[in-house]
Amino acid sequence: MDLGAQLHAELAQRGLTVATAESMTGGSVADLVSAAPGASATYVGGVVSYATEVKQQLLGVSESTVAEHGVVSSPCAAEMAAGVRGLLGTDYGVSTTGVAGPDPQEDKPVGLVYVGIAGPHGVDTHELRLAGERAEIRAEATRAAVRFLLEAVVHGPQREPREV
Amino acid sequence: MDLGAQLHAELAQRGLTVATAESMTGGSVADLVSAAPGASATYVGGVVSYATEVKQQLLGVSESTVAEHGVVSSPCAAEMAAGVRGLLGTDYGVSTTGVAGPDPQEDKPVGLVYVGIAGPHGVDTHELRLAGERAEIRAEATRAAVRFLLEAVVHGPQREPREV
Repeated sequence: MDLGAQLHAELAQRGLTVATAESMTGGSVADLVSAAPGASATYVGGVVSYATEVKQQLLGVSESTVAEHGVVSSPCAAEMAAGVRGLLGTDYGVSTTGVAGPDPQEDKPVGLVYVGIAGPHGVDTHELRLAGERAEIRAEATRAAVRFLLEAVVHGPQREPREV
Repeated sequence: MDLGAQLHAELAQRGLTVATAESMTGGSVADLVSAAPGASATYVGGVVSYATEVKQQLLGVSESTVAEHGVVSSPCAAEMAAGVRGLLGTDYGVSTTGVAGPDPQEDKPVGLVYVGIAGPHGVDTHELRLAGERAEIRAEATRAAVRFLLEAVVHGPQREPREV
């Protein structure tokens, strides 16, 4: 079973729903999460917040987070995941923000990615440092985000959650 | 040059921006539109409105459209495209809604897809009847949506636009 189908099955079995908030992955997390037949029972929708203004306007990422940490940061990933979970009223929210390349962004290196997982227990973030071309970094970040989400659904939070 | 890079180049050359509103394509239109290096100059973001409530809540699809025509309809595609264009303040909005399968929806057949293109000249919609498995229908609808958007950017509206 592929990753999207596996996630859908684990969510469906528990009666849980998810929403997505993506920056550097474009819409490919949403694409993977909605790929399985019957995905509409567990996938509600999401926001592709490519521009910073969309992160703030629709997902509620704070100006202070952008000013102090930048959009490629753990606090931004956390606010995006919590924001889309609140916006769409789902059990889980998953987010991605990072530098897909080819150029660095905010003086952060190509391949630096943050994934946020917001759930009933709080918000958790994961930092990744990926190698490769733009397309590979986007694809690997997508798979990592769905794997972290799947772990959270199946096993609960991976460490002490923190409030956002 | 692939379709995403071609779209990005045509938009960038004209100083234009685009937003996406997707249902049955998951996030794969956003994924394609954001794939090219430098895409942040022309792609602002989008909404994956998988659930009907998200189409209404974020994109402003009207209750009467849903009640009278269903979400798999030309009026819904038009309202989604115009809605995301207004929400994110872009020059163009592109939308997809349809039946990816494996089961029919709203008594409409698998493979029936509507694409909406909202731009400075109004809103245009296109009806597709695609064959194949769920993944093929999603992929073909994605390519068709980006091709229609590209045509609109390069050549203007394909027929008399109508107001939404």
